[in-house]
Amino acid sequence: MLPTEFIQQLQHFIPADRLYLDPVDCYAYAYDNSKKYFPPDCVIFPLTTDEVAQVILLCNKFKIPITPRGRGTGTAGGSLAEQGGTALSLERMIQIIAVDAANRVLVAQPGVLNEAVQVASKPHGFFWPPDPSSAAFSSIGGNLAAGAGGPHAVKYGTTRDHVLGLIAVTGQGNVIKTGCYTTKGVVGYDLTRLLVGSEGTLAVITEATLKLTPLPAAKGGLVAHYRDIDSCAQAITTIMREPQGPSALEFLDSGSLDLIRSRNPTMLQHDTGAMLMIEVDGTEHEITAATDKLLAACQNDGLLTAAPVQNTTELWKARKALSPLLRDIAPKKINEDIVVPVDKIPQLLAGLTTLCERYQIPNVNFGHAGNGNIHVNLLVDPDKPGESERAYECLDQIFDLVIDLNGTLSGEHGIGSEKRPYITKELDDVTLTLMKQIKLTFDPNNILNPGKLFP
Amino acid sequence: MLPTEFIQQLQHFIPADRLYLDPVDCYAYAYDNSKKYFPPDCVIFPLTTDEVAQVILLCNKFKIPITPRGRGTGTAGGSLAEQGGTALSLERMIQIIAVDAANRVLVAQPGVLNEAVQVASKPHGFFWPPDPSSAAFSSIGGNLAAGAGGPHAVKYGTTRDHVLGLIAVTGQGNVIKTGCYTTKGVVGYDLTRLLVGSEGTLAVITEATLKLTPLPAAKGGLVAHYRDIDSCAQAITTIMREPQGPSALEFLDSGSLDLIRSRNPTMLQHDTGAMLMIEVDGTEHEITAATDKLLAACQNDGLLTAAPVQNTTELWKARKALSPLLRDIAPKKINEDIVVPVDKIPQLLAGLTTLCERYQIPNVNFGHAGNGNIHVNLLVDPDKPGESERAYECLDQIFDLVIDLNGTLSGEHGIGSEKRPYITKELDDVTLTLMKQIKLTFDPNNILNPGKLFP
Repeated sequence: MLPTEFIQQLQHFIPADRLYLDPVDCYAYAYDNSKKYFPPDCVIFPLTTDEVAQVILLCNKFKIPITPRGRGTGTAGGSLAEQGGTALSLERMIQIIAVDAANRVLVAQPGVLNEAVQVASKPHGFFWPPDPSSAAFSSIGGNLAAGAGGPHAVKYGTTRDHVLGLIAVTGQGNVIKTGCYTTKGVVGYDLTRLLVGSEGTLAVITEATLKLTPLPAAKGGLVAHYRDIDSCAQAITTIMREPQGPSALEFLDSGSLDLIRSRNPTMLQHDTGAMLMIEVDGTEHEITAATDKLLAACQNDGLLTAAPVQNTTELWKARKALSPLLRDIAPKKINEDIVVPVDKIPQLLAGLTTLCERYQIPNVNFGHAGNGNIHVNLLVDPDKPGESERAYECLDQIFDLVIDLNGTLSGEHGIGSEKRPYITKELDDVTLTLMKQIKLTFDPNNILNPGKLFP
Repeated sequence: MLPTEFIQQLQHFIPADRLYLDPVDCYAYAYDNSKKYFPPDCVIFPLTTDEVAQVILLCNKFKIPITPRGRGTGTAGGSLAEQGGTALSLERMIQIIAVDAANRVLVAQPGVLNEAVQVASKPHGFFWPPDPSSAAFSSIGGNLAAGAGGPHAVKYGTTRDHVLGLIAVTGQGNVIKTGCYTTKGVVGYDLTRLLVGSEGTLAVITEATLKLTPLPAAKGGLVAHYRDIDSCAQAITTIMREPQGPSALEFLDSGSLDLIRSRNPTMLQHDTGAMLMIEVDGTEHEITAATDKLLAACQNDGLLTAAPVQNTTELWKARKALSPLLRDIAPKKINEDIVVPVDKIPQLLAGLTTLCERYQIPNVNFGHAGNGNIHVNLLVDPDKPGESERAYECLDQIFDLVIDLNGTLSGEHGIGSEKRPYITKELDDVTLTLMKQIKLTFDPNNILNPGKLFP
C-alpha cells in the first residue's frame, strides 16, 4: 500500500487521467511477455522529462520502488513491478522530436514505437536497424533498455550501435544528457552505452538521439534445406566466413520444422532436418553476387536443396508460420536466447540434443545463427510430476555449456528477473560488485527497478 | 620523490629491467604529442594483468598516482604524469593472443600496435577499422583509452564500435572482465564502452577482444577542387546525403592548400580554394557506381574540377604532403578536433573565418568532413606580445560556436589536460558530477591518471 501523503503529492503534478490507483486499472501493467504477474500499486504516465524527474524525486523521498516500462514486450521480466510501488509507463511520451535526414538522425521520446521510427525514416531513405520481432508494437525506450537485437544484427549490429545520445533521469532524480548529436564524440565517459541495456536500473531514458542507416536498395534471399542439424551447423560457419556476408541468417531445427509440418503439412519438404533462411541486401548487382557466393557456401554433403527465393515474404514464410505455433506448443515454454561464437554452433547444437535427451525435455531451437544467437525453447508440462524440475536442471546445464563454449547467456532479451539466478555463471564476483556499485551511484536508494538484473 | 618502502616493495615483483627510477631514463616518458613535459618519478613496464593489479594495489597503499601509457601519441596530454608518481607503460604487453578468423575476432594485449593488428588480420581477409593517423606507431591500448577515430570512421565508426570485451584492472586494483566474445551480448552493464574513451581514469586495459571487419575488395577515389570554402562545404553536405556514401571524405581549406603550395609549387592547381578527397571501397562494380554518384554530388557552381584518381596514393598525395608541413608551420600550433553536425559545416567554416580574422590568428583547417570532424589549427607565435592570449580567446569563441551548432569539443583526441578547462561548455554540472562519482567507484583513492578529463 502506498502512503496517502505520497499519493497526495503525486496528484499535485500528475493529473488523474495519467495516474492509475485502482487495482483493476493497474492490473494491465502487472505483466509482460515473461508471463509473470506483479501488480504495481500505481501506474504513472508522465509526458515530460521534468515529470519523470519529479516522480523519481518523490519516490526517493518515500522510498517507493519505480519500475519503468515501455510496451511490456520483454521476455525476461525486466518491466515488472516485482516489489510493488510505481509502474512508470513511458507509453504516452510518443513525440518524434526531429527527423534530420541531412545528419541521419532521429530524435524521439521513449514511447515512440520502433515501427513508428521506421515509418518516419523511410521517406528519407533511412531506417533504424534494431529489429526485435516485437518491432511493430515495442517502444524504442524498451528497445534501448533491453539492448534489443533481431535478425539483421548480423549485418547491422544491435541497439547500442545505433544511439548517439540520450536525455535520462537517474535513480536519484537528476536529469543527465549523454553522448552527442554527431557520429564522432569522445567528451567524457560513454554514459549512453552504459544506459543502453541497463534494463531501467540506472536511469529512465526520456529522449533518444538515434543514428539512422541508409535503406538498402533491394533485398534478396535464399533458402537451404539440410538433411540434419550437423550439416546445417557446418554451413552456418562456412557462410559466416564469407567477408560479404548475409544481412540475416536464420535457422530452424527439426523440432521447429516438425511443429510447422504439424499445421502446414505441405509447406516443407519431408526430409528436411534443418533449414537456413538467408537474406542479402544491397544493390541488385550486389545481391546477385552475394547470392552466388552464399549458395556456394551452403554446399556440403548434407545439403538437400538450396535456391534463391523470389521475394522476402517467401523467404520468411516458414519462420512466420512458426511464431504462432510456439505460443500454444506446450503449457510452459522456457525461452532462452543464448549466444556462442559462430564456430561453436555445431558443438552447441550437439550438446543441446544430448542434454535434452538426457533430461527428457522436448525442445525447439531456432534463431539468429549468424550471430551464434540461438533461441532455445524447452517445452514443459508443469502438471507432469518432476518435469519442471528436470527442465530447470537441463537449463542449468545448457547455460554451463554456453559458458564453456565462450558464449553469453543473453544476446538480446536481457537478464530481468528470469536469468537473474544464472548471471554469476557469466560474471565474476568482482565485476558484478562493480556493477552494483555503479547502480548505487546512479540510484543510491535502490528504487529504480530494484532487484532486477542482480542475483 | 617516491617513498623508499614503495620502491622496495615494487622491486619484489618488478625486475630491474622493467622499472626505471633514474630521472634520465624516466624523461623519455615525460612527454607525448601534446608537447607538454611532466616527468614521472618512475616508469613500470608490466607484462601481465596480474602485475598491473599488483602495481595498482601497491600504489593505492601508498597513494601514488599512476598514469597508464601506450605509445604517447595522444595530443590531449592524457598520458602525461601531471602529478608525478608512476608512469605505467603498457608497451611491453605486445602479445597477439588469438587471431580467430572464423569468429572475426582478434584478442590482443594493450601494447600491440594498431598496425600489428592490421598485419595479423590481413591474411585472413580482415582489418580493424579504427585508423588514427598514428596507426603505424600507436598501440591499441592507447586507441581504446582515447576512443580513437580516423578518416574511415565515416563509414566504419570509431574504436567503441569495434571492441567486444576487455580485461582490465580498476583503480582499486580489481581485475574485471567486461563484454563477451560474441557479436551479441546483453548480460550486465556495458562496461566495455564505459572504459573505451575513459582515458585511463577508470581502469587499465590489459587485454582486448577486438571485432574484425572484412577488408573491402578494392578502393577507389576522386578528388574535387572548389573555388572557395562555401561551395566545398555545400558539397560535403550533398555528398553525405547519398545513402551509399564514401569510405572517407577528407577536406583541406585554403590555409592548408597554401601551405602545401609553399613547398610543392606544382602539386595543386592555382585557383583551388578548398579541396575534397573522397574514397570509396567495395567491389569494382560498387566503386564504379559510387564514384559516379559522388561525382554527381560534387557538382555545384563553385566546383572547378572533380575527377577519379587512379590509385589511393594519388588520392592522399596532398594530405600526406600537408602533415610534415604542419609540424614546422608556426612556433606553436593549437590543434583541435571539434565536430559539428554535417549540415552545420558551412556555418562552422564561415564562423571560423570570422573569428580568426577578428582575433588575427592564422589558421589551417582540414579533416574528416564526412563526420563533421574538423581539425582546426590555430598558428601562434608565443613571442609576439598578446598573440597567445588572443589565440586562446579565439579558441574559447570557437568552442562556443561548436556548442551553439550542436557539436562536440572532441571527436577523437579526447580531453586529457588540454581540453579540461572547456569541458563544462559541453557537459552540464549534473552529468559531470555523475561521471566523477563513477570515477570514484572505479578508483576511490583517485590514483588512476588523477586530474585528467575533469575540470
